[in-house]
Amino acid sequence: MDNFNISKHISGQFNLELEDVRNKVMAMGGLVEQQLAQALEVMASCDEQLAAKVVARDRQVNTMEVAIDEECTRIIAKRQPAASDLRLVLAISKAVTDLERIGDSAERIARLAAESHGKRHRGMLVAMEAMGRQTQRMLHDVLDAFARMDVDAAMRIHKEDVKLDDAYEGVVRQLMTFMMEDPRSIPEILDVLWAARSLERVGDRCQNICEYVIYYVKGKDIRHLDMTQVEDLLK
Amino acid sequence: MDNFNISKHISGQFNLELEDVRNKVMAMGGLVEQQLAQALEVMASCDEQLAAKVVARDRQVNTMEVAIDEECTRIIAKRQPAASDLRLVLAISKAVTDLERIGDSAERIARLAAESHGKRHRGMLVAMEAMGRQTQRMLHDVLDAFARMDVDAAMRIHKEDVKLDDAYEGVVRQLMTFMMEDPRSIPEILDVLWAARSLERVGDRCQNICEYVIYYVKGKDIRHLDMTQVEDLLK
Repeated sequence: MDNFNISKHISGQFNLELEDVRNKVMAMGGLVEQQLAQALEVMASCDEQLAAKVVARDRQVNTMEVAIDEECTRIIAKRQPAASDLRLVLAISKAVTDLERIGDSAERIARLAAESHGKRHRGMLVAMEAMGRQTQRMLHDVLDAFARMDVDAAMRIHKEDVKLDDAYEGVVRQLMTFMMEDPRSIPEILDVLWAARSLERVGDRCQNICEYVIYYVKGKDIRHLDMTQVEDLLK
Repeated sequence: MDNFNISKHISGQFNLELEDVRNKVMAMGGLVEQQLAQALEVMASCDEQLAAKVVARDRQVNTMEVAIDEECTRIIAKRQPAASDLRLVLAISKAVTDLERIGDSAERIARLAAESHGKRHRGMLVAMEAMGRQTQRMLHDVLDAFARMDVDAAMRIHKEDVKLDDAYEGVVRQLMTFMMEDPRSIPEILDVLWAARSLERVGDRCQNICEYVIYYVKGKDIRHLDMTQVEDLLK
């Protein structure tokens, strides 16, 4: 009876620890979402103070990545989790790396936008705005799917990245036209191009997080598979 | 006595498993090195058959990433390693992700180069060649440091990435000049720009691997620290 209680207690404590680390990931995700939203705002406003905020926030996000990853290692060493518990800890450890890189992308976008001092024309902003909104929604949805470990949502979001890729291709084509029309503006248009590229990379990071959700719930590593293979694997 | 033998046997078996997974990482590293070398060759020669080889090789590298990562998870679940053994398994699990992404960069470079059908001028190639050689050396050195878990080498290579960043900045400036001089060539110069960007990212990935070496040997996570902080931490 005593033994039973102890093991119940240990497992209860373990669950608390897992819950705690999951909450920290969600808090980190919230910060990164805010970073991205503010970076896109800087794209439109060139607000240097806001850009400085995004950059400062990045240090906080970095610290959270390292702290959560350490917590994951500590849990593995102390609790020796197996099966789905181990998959959860490993999925979290990987997800925070992608979240941190999304934060880096936001930081890069904010920096580039602030440095441009508003030297860019309306057409570029319009092209980027739609892509920005799409990326924001993708990040929001993927954090939601991760919080609920929702495989169906993860599959849906994973597939939707292709739309972001299309939007990115469109932006690149448009920016290329602008460059050819006015070669003197090439340096500043390249900055916008880097920002677009960063947004496209955020989509790839979101896809990675979808893969961790599927890995945790289904125990299958779907990296590098195409969607038909994934659907076959998850049947 | 029996117990002692068994535990010795178990630990011997465990060491064999660790050794095996390390060897697989080195084999994967060798393939990625070859991919990068061939991608750079395609940059110079536009050899479409060689490009196809680099692309095909990427599937092999992807499969190795997933297999090694699964092996790491299996070792954690079965052997419940602690301290430096756990750090080694986690370091390997992270390193293969970076190696795979280096393979992706090589694939992208080979594709871009093959698609260009030789439409680019000598100046671009010269600029890229030096950067390519630098990146290849960095990857070679980092794989060597990882094989020997050599902290001093890892620190040295980590610091050297700044040289690759400088080379990249130089290439970007040069390509910008080419674009301004001949706006019709913008689309093809952008392809070279993406290739340069991919090389620069390979350097960042190499830095990550340096960080895992330091994490394994010193038990310190140095991500996001600057070099002065790292040196203080490792004192």
